[in-house]
Amino acid sequence: MSTQTTELRIGMVGYAFMGTAHSQAWRTVNRVFDLSLRARMAAICGRDQVRVAEAAAQLGWQEHTSDWRALIDRDDIDLIDVCTPGDSHAEIAIAALAAGKHVLCEKPLANTIDEARAMATAAAAAEAAGVRSMCGFNYRRVPAVTLMRRLIADGRIGEIRHVRAVYLQDWITDPQFPLVWRLQKDRAGSGALGDIGAHIIDLTQFVTGQRIAGVSALTETFVKQRPLPAASSGLSAATGDGLSGTGAVTVDDAALFLARLDGGAIATYEATRFATGRKNGLRVEINGSQGSVVFDFERMNELEFYDATRPSAEQGFARILVTEPDHPYMSGWWPPGHVIGYEHSFTHQARDFIEAIATGADVAPSFADALQVQLVLDAVERSAALGSMWSEVEPVLTEIAA
Amino acid sequence: MSTQTTELRIGMVGYAFMGTAHSQAWRTVNRVFDLSLRARMAAICGRDQVRVAEAAAQLGWQEHTSDWRALIDRDDIDLIDVCTPGDSHAEIAIAALAAGKHVLCEKPLANTIDEARAMATAAAAAEAAGVRSMCGFNYRRVPAVTLMRRLIADGRIGEIRHVRAVYLQDWITDPQFPLVWRLQKDRAGSGALGDIGAHIIDLTQFVTGQRIAGVSALTETFVKQRPLPAASSGLSAATGDGLSGTGAVTVDDAALFLARLDGGAIATYEATRFATGRKNGLRVEINGSQGSVVFDFERMNELEFYDATRPSAEQGFARILVTEPDHPYMSGWWPPGHVIGYEHSFTHQARDFIEAIATGADVAPSFADALQVQLVLDAVERSAALGSMWSEVEPVLTEIAA
Amino acid sequence: MSTQTTELRIGMVGYAFMGTAHSQAWRTVNRVFDLSLRARMAAICGRDQVRVAEAAAQLGWQEHTSDWRALIDRDDIDLIDVCTPGDSHAEIAIAALAAGKHVLCEKPLANTIDEARAMATAAAAAEAAGVRSMCGFNYRRVPAVTLMRRLIADGRIGEIRHVRAVYLQDWITDPQFPLVWRLQKDRAGSGALGDIGAHIIDLTQFVTGQRIAGVSALTETFVKQRPLPAASSGLSAATGDGLSGTGAVTVDDAALFLARLDGGAIATYEATRFATGRKNGLRVEINGSQGSVVFDFERMNELEFYDATRPSAEQGFARILVTEPDHPYMSGWWPPGHVIGYEHSFTHQARDFIEAIATGADVAPSFADALQVQLVLDAVERSAALGSMWSEVEPVLTEIAA
Amino acid sequence: MSTQTTELRIGMVGYAFMGTAHSQAWRTVNRVFDLSLRARMAAICGRDQVRVAEAAAQLGWQEHTSDWRALIDRDDIDLIDVCTPGDSHAEIAIAALAAGKHVLCEKPLANTIDEARAMATAAAAAEAAGVRSMCGFNYRRVPAVTLMRRLIADGRIGEIRHVRAVYLQDWITDPQFPLVWRLQKDRAGSGALGDIGAHIIDLTQFVTGQRIAGVSALTETFVKQRPLPAASSGLSAATGDGLSGTGAVTVDDAALFLARLDGGAIATYEATRFATGRKNGLRVEINGSQGSVVFDFERMNELEFYDATRPSAEQGFARILVTEPDHPYMSGWWPPGHVIGYEHSFTHQARDFIEAIATGADVAPSFADALQVQLVLDAVERSAALGSMWSEVEPVLTEIAA
Repeated sequence: MSTQTTELRIGMVGYAFMGTAHSQAWRTVNRVFDLSLRARMAAICGRDQVRVAEAAAQLGWQEHTSDWRALIDRDDIDLIDVCTPGDSHAEIAIAALAAGKHVLCEKPLANTIDEARAMATAAAAAEAAGVRSMCGFNYRRVPAVTLMRRLIADGRIGEIRHVRAVYLQDWITDPQFPLVWRLQKDRAGSGALGDIGAHIIDLTQFVTGQRIAGVSALTETFVKQRPLPAASSGLSAATGDGLSGTGAVTVDDAALFLARLDGGAIATYEATRFATGRKNGLRVEINGSQGSVVFDFERMNELEFYDATRPSAEQGFARILVTEPDHPYMSGWWPPGHVIGYEHSFTHQARDFIEAIATGADVAPSFADALQVQLVLDAVERSAALGSMWSEVEPVLTEIAA
Repeated sequence: MSTQTTELRIGMVGYAFMGTAHSQAWRTVNRVFDLSLRARMAAICGRDQVRVAEAAAQLGWQEHTSDWRALIDRDDIDLIDVCTPGDSHAEIAIAALAAGKHVLCEKPLANTIDEARAMATAAAAAEAAGVRSMCGFNYRRVPAVTLMRRLIADGRIGEIRHVRAVYLQDWITDPQFPLVWRLQKDRAGSGALGDIGAHIIDLTQFVTGQRIAGVSALTETFVKQRPLPAASSGLSAATGDGLSGTGAVTVDDAALFLARLDGGAIATYEATRFATGRKNGLRVEINGSQGSVVFDFERMNELEFYDATRPSAEQGFARILVTEPDHPYMSGWWPPGHVIGYEHSFTHQARDFIEAIATGADVAPSFADALQVQLVLDAVERSAALGSMWSEVEPVLTEIAA
Repeated sequence: MSTQTTELRIGMVGYAFMGTAHSQAWRTVNRVFDLSLRARMAAICGRDQVRVAEAAAQLGWQEHTSDWRALIDRDDIDLIDVCTPGDSHAEIAIAALAAGKHVLCEKPLANTIDEARAMATAAAAAEAAGVRSMCGFNYRRVPAVTLMRRLIADGRIGEIRHVRAVYLQDWITDPQFPLVWRLQKDRAGSGALGDIGAHIIDLTQFVTGQRIAGVSALTETFVKQRPLPAASSGLSAATGDGLSGTGAVTVDDAALFLARLDGGAIATYEATRFATGRKNGLRVEINGSQGSVVFDFERMNELEFYDATRPSAEQGFARILVTEPDHPYMSGWWPPGHVIGYEHSFTHQARDFIEAIATGADVAPSFADALQVQLVLDAVERSAALGSMWSEVEPVLTEIAA
Repeated sequence: MSTQTTELRIGMVGYAFMGTAHSQAWRTVNRVFDLSLRARMAAICGRDQVRVAEAAAQLGWQEHTSDWRALIDRDDIDLIDVCTPGDSHAEIAIAALAAGKHVLCEKPLANTIDEARAMATAAAAAEAAGVRSMCGFNYRRVPAVTLMRRLIADGRIGEIRHVRAVYLQDWITDPQFPLVWRLQKDRAGSGALGDIGAHIIDLTQFVTGQRIAGVSALTETFVKQRPLPAASSGLSAATGDGLSGTGAVTVDDAALFLARLDGGAIATYEATRFATGRKNGLRVEINGSQGSVVFDFERMNELEFYDATRPSAEQGFARILVTEPDHPYMSGWWPPGHVIGYEHSFTHQARDFIEAIATGADVAPSFADALQVQLVLDAVERSAALGSMWSEVEPVLTEIAA
């Protein structure tokens, strides 16, 4: 084992769902992987003094603050981890980059294209100064997904014909579920589209190596009025007390779109929070001229691979249990067959970002990559607003993408 | 057991894939089900004298002919079963109805809207005279599909939110696969869209009780030129000898579309012959406000049912093995767990048509139902031709639909 | 297509569950397969004059009789198909062989070792005279099972280490289910053991090419008294009326045993009628030094194959959909992905027996093979009676086995 | 959030596979669950000074030592966590209990019955003094397994008829895999039997609430000689260099047994390291008079539940995704559908042990429970040595079990 001589001092903003998941990652990453930098959970920041203090104690952060600007100004912080709702990403991330901090920013990168573009521009500028940034599309780091990309990149399924991607949840099917911030456009930017649709856009572009070039879309809000919560997080809310009437749901419940990718594939995408019985049903199937791959997050330790070059009588979808030492990320964990969970994707994300910082290696997804996802979301919304008319995806400017 | 006193004398036109499947059904239906009419396999018709004679011997038809008009004129034929390619459906079916024969016509009903409308009009007129007609959307008669409809009709999944339907095959992924008639627009009407897309349109409308009201679509032909076969059936061809150059593929390889149903559901549809590894992957998932149902033809004896009214900790997709005596059609077959196959759907179709003829009960899908499917196909093609622009589905005229 | 010049005239004894399944096979076999002999459903025999007449009409037999000896004596019958309960197999089959008729006999071959041995001896003698015999272990003819054997015979899983076989049903879990003949030792010979355990004994010996050499067993009868039925078939009975008290269940409800095979494999076997939720759960897994294969009848069109010689990161259980033209028996049926059902195993059995008769090829399973299965059942019962003590399986005598 | 006022200072002995897993649990448990005691990772102990120092740094222990007796003597240690091979469990655990330390001991409890009995006796005595002990059968704490127990305890599957348990691995199928300590009887006690067979014995007794009363067994060592490793852990070894000849494998590769449980169920058990393709295939199915439950560790977030009291046409095995807040342990983790992994079972184990220490609640599995598992293992070995003769399981003495 090498001796880790340098620390990477983390300051995190936000402590809800994503904050908890990222905390677990920072706490674990150096215990499992042998890295050149050791993450230290230096400080956590949140608006509510009492609750952020509790969160620091619970999650294991050494200090806490309610002033994110103060956090960014500290000399003893190397990396800012942005886990707030999307409407504050741009301000925090750009300020942090300007202060010379590496930035890990949760997805979606921002709530508007303009913000996202500003962030990508800032990140490109910071990169030149050796300041690194990354967007948190954690599903890329599920070992089965990384393996999927490897198989495709190695040509194992040939030329890609079809992408079939859904992200299905059901947590708001009850019309009495309250109007949490994730259902408000000003806070969340969009509904299922940006929250979970963004994941399958990024994931499919990642594994295929192709970009979505144009889309035809429709969106729907099934439940248009919901009870107002007294207080809520993004995912849940106290019910039954403190409710004061109802409010309008201003985001989509479901978004569906067809797409063409720039490498010739055609695709269907669906993101919904109304798929009863599907809890976190991120499922992607890719068909190529020589094979196919299938991933379903609810069975995240498995990848199905159909190899059409095998003898005809033996062809079938092989259920690969992605827990072997030669599978991505798995040598750090348990013996074969001892499966991992959702949170491990964040640990892998932390590992890759730490190593990129330590070695100068490329980071992906960059803010430019995340901007490109935002541009797809934008094309989807434009098409849905115009009777599903075909909408081209605007290109990321060269100076950002480079 | 009742005594069957009356025969139903069948004349079949066509003896390829569908002809073989229908023959198996007529041969079996009275052995398994106790019906008021007994099917007799009276005569088969095909263009090639030698081959139709062979087919008659092989499939068990008492007589054979190469003249379908003569067949229709016979007094001792009660029912004409049309199993030819789509371009001859209208002429044969309309003539048969005019001659007072009941008609079972394979799907798609016709290759053009005009033909389909003429057929539906003829059928409506014949119906008034007690002459019955039915279109062969056999998948409705898979017991799991019929059970799916029953559960939905009984309100077991509540209000329908999502339809997710794919029909995936892979038999022409090889660019050297020859240009069989199913790849030629003048014979087949369309490609994957009409051949297999029609099935999922009909099936989802059947199980939901909702009609597709509008669509946004894209279609693709991945392989635009193919070797000309010396001789071919619709599904296969001799290769390697007799090939003389290549010809243009004039139909779609894949068709994708988004849809709104008239009951408020939104939907994605995909039909393709390029989904490597999927052999007959007709898969439908319906999500409602209180539950979901899932069917996958490759496991046709199973239906998945999620009942969201059960206690939270016990909810899950139940894999119902649809082989119990109280499942649709199954009392005629084997003990529970002794599964059935593809061909049984045709036997069930024959059973239902025979009983409708015997009892005067309603027949579904009627030619009007099949015309409506054609109108959806037409809307899909219009949308695909106009940059995925939203296209309303034209209504079936009242005098036909009634 | 060849011209079939010779008929094979069938006489069947019995018309219940197995009689129905065999009738479907004889009716279908020449429609699907191109064979040198054409089966004719000449006559059916049953004890009840009225019911056998009805069965003949329903199942499509040309004649019927209540005298099986008369059937055997007819010159215009070539083959006797024995579908009665096990207690009459020996008498009928031996007489038929003596009369020079080919014999297909349902399993279990007989209810006692002595009877089975007499039958195997008679079959061996008849064989010398060109009279053929076969025992109806139909599951061998499920294409996925035949493929399993082919893969093993080809060395694809290496040296066999483990056999894991269960046959799980649940049709008598209700203590009020009546005392049908299958629950009576004098009629059925044994319970789950002989009825369904025999199938997994034969199937695993068939696919591995190894014989069970010794066993350790336990059996159990969970419900020891059951209502007497007024009248019953083997699988069901009228309930609620005509019941007159209860009677003792004299067979096993479940039989479990460990085994060693003569090629070095070790095995677990379980046959039960009390596995709630398992309807026809015949499941076999074989682990070898280089791979594994798994079959589950409830998904009979699939075979799982694990090939441990593939690259480590790609190994997985491949779900082979056994519907390709180069899969066993499948070229006669439908296009890929168009699955078949339970009854098709009987059609394949009929096909193979017809071809063996026509060509003189070896028949398997022979009566000697079936006797060997009986000897395993006998060893199981001996072990269970002696506190699970290890019991060697008695060898089939050379003059019979040869 | 409550304020945790008291620490629970942990001293761990051993730092290999189990040491790593337990470290992850102690590190995480208070971050996820709100407990009355806070675990502190005080000190780790191992024989090799250099390697234990590395392990302390890597795993996050505050101190390290190579003297376990010194660790036990420290006043500032509250709990000893024994993660060494089985041959040292008794000595360490008994000494720790005598020193007033709570003890968590990995399974198997010991390598011999005498040692296990001495440990259970010591634990019973310590318990009277408020010193708690627990054996590490972590699979009990997989949420789906705990849910399985709850459903059974609530009577949801009725009277239990069948237990079907396998634990299948394949990590030593290669004859060149070296002779690691887990293959040596003096270190490991037994092979697959004690290592993984013990887990399914404990798990099935836990979920059914029934004890194994007697067994009939066979064991096998397929590869009898293996290369000697230069140095090895229990699960792997450097190969290719430093090997000096071969040595005898002195444990079983596979153990199979039939069993009767004291509540009337009958069972099959199989533990093997030669099931090619099965990586950590712990699978248990329980059939009752009114339902069934199935668990498969490779899909550890799922439980299948068949409820035979539902309407016949709707019965099926429901795949419950065990990630809801009202599922055992899950309220501490992520939103529904965000699955967990293997290591979480250890976190849950730590949670339950901490709470039992804090509240005085009963601990399970106790050392007496673990002794009972050892007595089953002993009966299996006796039966296997005596030609599979039925062997009763010796009872745990009352003074220990109480």
